[in-house]
Amino acid sequence: MDVIRIALLGYGTVGKGVHQTIQLQQERLQTLLGKRVELAGVLVKNINKHHIEDSSVLLTDNCEELFSLGNIHVVIDAIVGREPGFSYLKRAIQNGTHIITANKELFAHHGRELKSLADEKGVSIGYEATVGAGIPIIQTLSKLLQVNKVKRIQGILNGTSNFILSSMREKGLSFQEALKEAQEKGYAESDPGNDIEGRDAYFKALVLSDLAYGKKPEEEHTLLKGITDITIEQINYFSSLNLRFKHVAEIVKAPGKISCAVRPVLVSPEHPLYQVEYEQNAIAVETTIAGRITLQGLGAGMYPTASAVIEDLVQLENQHSQPVWREDVHLEAEEIEQSLWILPIRLEKQLKDKKKILGKLGSKCLIAKNLDEESLELRDHALEVLGGIDLPQIQGLQKSVKIS
Amino acid sequence: MDVIRIALLGYGTVGKGVHQTIQLQQERLQTLLGKRVELAGVLVKNINKHHIEDSSVLLTDNCEELFSLGNIHVVIDAIVGREPGFSYLKRAIQNGTHIITANKELFAHHGRELKSLADEKGVSIGYEATVGAGIPIIQTLSKLLQVNKVKRIQGILNGTSNFILSSMREKGLSFQEALKEAQEKGYAESDPGNDIEGRDAYFKALVLSDLAYGKKPEEEHTLLKGITDITIEQINYFSSLNLRFKHVAEIVKAPGKISCAVRPVLVSPEHPLYQVEYEQNAIAVETTIAGRITLQGLGAGMYPTASAVIEDLVQLENQHSQPVWREDVHLEAEEIEQSLWILPIRLEKQLKDKKKILGKLGSKCLIAKNLDEESLELRDHALEVLGGIDLPQIQGLQKSVKIS
Ligand SMILES: NC(=O)c1ccc[n+]([C@@H]2O[C@H](COP(=O)([O-])OP(=O)(O)OC[C@H]3O[C@@H](n4cnc5c(N)ncnc54)[C@H](OP(=O)(O)O)[C@@H]3O)[C@@H](O)[C@H]2O)c1
Ligand SMILES: NC(=O)c1ccc[n+]([C@@H]2O[C@H](COP(=O)([O-])OP(=O)(O)OC[C@H]3O[C@@H](n4cnc5c(N)ncnc54)[C@H](OP(=O)(O)O)[C@@H]3O)[C@@H](O)[C@H]2O)c1
Repeated sequence: MDVIRIALLGYGTVGKGVHQTIQLQQERLQTLLGKRVELAGVLVKNINKHHIEDSSVLLTDNCEELFSLGNIHVVIDAIVGREPGFSYLKRAIQNGTHIITANKELFAHHGRELKSLADEKGVSIGYEATVGAGIPIIQTLSKLLQVNKVKRIQGILNGTSNFILSSMREKGLSFQEALKEAQEKGYAESDPGNDIEGRDAYFKALVLSDLAYGKKPEEEHTLLKGITDITIEQINYFSSLNLRFKHVAEIVKAPGKISCAVRPVLVSPEHPLYQVEYEQNAIAVETTIAGRITLQGLGAGMYPTASAVIEDLVQLENQHSQPVWREDVHLEAEEIEQSLWILPIRLEKQLKDKKKILGKLGSKCLIAKNLDEESLELRDHALEVLGGIDLPQIQGLQKSVKIS
Repeated sequence: MDVIRIALLGYGTVGKGVHQTIQLQQERLQTLLGKRVELAGVLVKNINKHHIEDSSVLLTDNCEELFSLGNIHVVIDAIVGREPGFSYLKRAIQNGTHIITANKELFAHHGRELKSLADEKGVSIGYEATVGAGIPIIQTLSKLLQVNKVKRIQGILNGTSNFILSSMREKGLSFQEALKEAQEKGYAESDPGNDIEGRDAYFKALVLSDLAYGKKPEEEHTLLKGITDITIEQINYFSSLNLRFKHVAEIVKAPGKISCAVRPVLVSPEHPLYQVEYEQNAIAVETTIAGRITLQGLGAGMYPTASAVIEDLVQLENQHSQPVWREDVHLEAEEIEQSLWILPIRLEKQLKDKKKILGKLGSKCLIAKNLDEESLELRDHALEVLGGIDLPQIQGLQKSVKIS
């Protein structure tokens, strides 16, 4: 069987996720590509930190060693910063290798140059992972909206900032407390500057601008501001008006200019970005024919990012489309979590005694501080109210009645 | 220059939208396809109702006449019901013609058969328009999520039902009043049975099930219920608990079975379907690697549906990817509406006198019945509150403070 050989730059969160995903999805990849996918080598900075089980994989901190590996088809970039990544990717393209990158800072600054070079050399570039991780916004814009023109893009592109704003509003935390929580949960880096000062979202906006409009926004039409000045008092005040702070990157094309504003805005409930909370990202694209289309999902994390890289790999290597579905022994019932937030109900049963139930269920929820402790009791009340609910689905209720 | 010749079945909302879009986007289509796109003929039921300006287009109510047109490359189906559409599409495929269909009822029932036939004959089928109109859910599942497996799909797939539920909740209308409003606005058919009894959403669920899992849900695992029994009292009651009724189609794969439930459910604010209101549709796809990805947009209407058809056309005919962007003289500043729901603010300015402003802005909004009449006054108050807002963006405020 033919093989696709991969060289991987970086073995941190993303690099490891990609390696694991290649292993876990080997069978599926072979079906899709008609080829085995093989990790040939991995480049890291500090080789002592790392170990790779499979001894056929070269692990090195010497880029010359990596580049001297024969028959590499794809170089996957999961390192940090503009350099040495840019030099490595140029070299890979010069060698006639496809590249896939998750490195938004690099791609924001050198994407156009890499795209031109790739065109020249007849190789492809995948960069889905640079924006919104598992949300397929890059491919949607490149492939699925070709006749439509993009009028405007508005996106929540940084999960850390969004997490902090949600925590502040929902838990009444100060900025510093919320930041600390985000760091503890692994959303924010130990140096979270790029996130909270808006640069990470700005890099992603540059990538989107180049994709949608063929160039970056002009500097004089660019505004960049992070979330560091937002106070809990401001959040509470606007909350009382049903407005929520979101850190939004907006890219707009007008005749002769592209403007880009990356800053906190107030969003009202009618806008699809209003309910995008915590580590979620979302991108609303206003198009000329289809209207506004919004994509939402996890904008960071090991597997969502690896997903983007692996889907890029399939796109690069394979233009014939295969069925999405397949008989799959691995998808077990346990893997399907119950939906926490959708409660199916049977409408035939009328609510019998609304006042009584409201007294029990409604007001209790309004005042209950720790809803988890109340969940069993709530479940019983809910059963009375709702009639014929499927029992396993009821588990969501203790949260679903949490009053914001 | 080469030409792609199209035969169009039906000249109602969708058919007309497709024709207009071909005309308006001719230049773009030529760039993408390297070919001119030409409408060769249109089939209708009642020829007396119709007139087509361009005399080179055959307008007929005789399918034999349409099928005897030479050199047709693509047949686009925009008629209603399973027959005669199914026979026509089979015939088109037999003739070696690609097909694109918007006809969900037909495709729900005969999609698999048409797909097999198309594979046999080496032609392609586009059916993006059958689900969610301009939301590119079909292509996202087929092309962008190939390595990911689909664990569950939950979707608001019928704009009419969703419109009715939103109107009832937000305006306190009865079911009948809300239905009437939907009909007046052109969302519901004069015979709205398919919409409000859930069949339209069910057809779309069948299409998604076949795409994601290669077959339809078994009948014994299928539940179908519309929104006709929902009362305003129920809506109000659950509203007070922060729960909203949504008509959701859910398709889940478990070992050995596919289950499908199309019915009203209660959704809480944490779920991405919670804020999908009025004529919007949305589909949340739970995947094995990327997590949950949600797509939202307009699920019906002339142009969103035509968008899906035209994007399918480009996908069918052209596998090399072209840049999304282009210098475009047609995109004028006026075309970009100001965002109604995002208000950028400058955080440097502190709110000076919250109580005073709340008295003016907050409570006024809470009681103002006709916010449009108040908009100028509101704008002035808002300027006081928010400090340095860009003036053109403030127009959203009169709506953004509407309290639900
Ligand atoms: N984490 C996410 O959720 C996410 C999402 C989307 C995109 N990204 C992007 O993906 C890239 C990787 O992110 P990450 O979270 O995986 O970072 P990470 O955990 O810090 O890992 C970075 C890896 O790159 C290696 N590296 C750094 N500089 C290097 C150099 N000069 N030469 C060789 N190797 C070098 C490091 O080696 P050592 O281990 O030896 O130090 C480490 O293995 C970044 O560009 C990031 O912006 C990340
Ligand atoms: N409207 C939407 O937003 C939307 C969105 C997605 C999908 N769709 C689907 O797209 C299709 C078209 O919808 P529509 O809203 O355009 O419907 P429509 O406005 O009612 O138009 C239907 C057209 O089909 C023609 N037609 C019907 N039966 C025919 C037959 N037996 N032979 C020849 N022509 C026939 C009609 O001809 P006459 O004009 O002569 O009667 C009419 O021009 C439907 O399958 C619908 O489910 C619609």
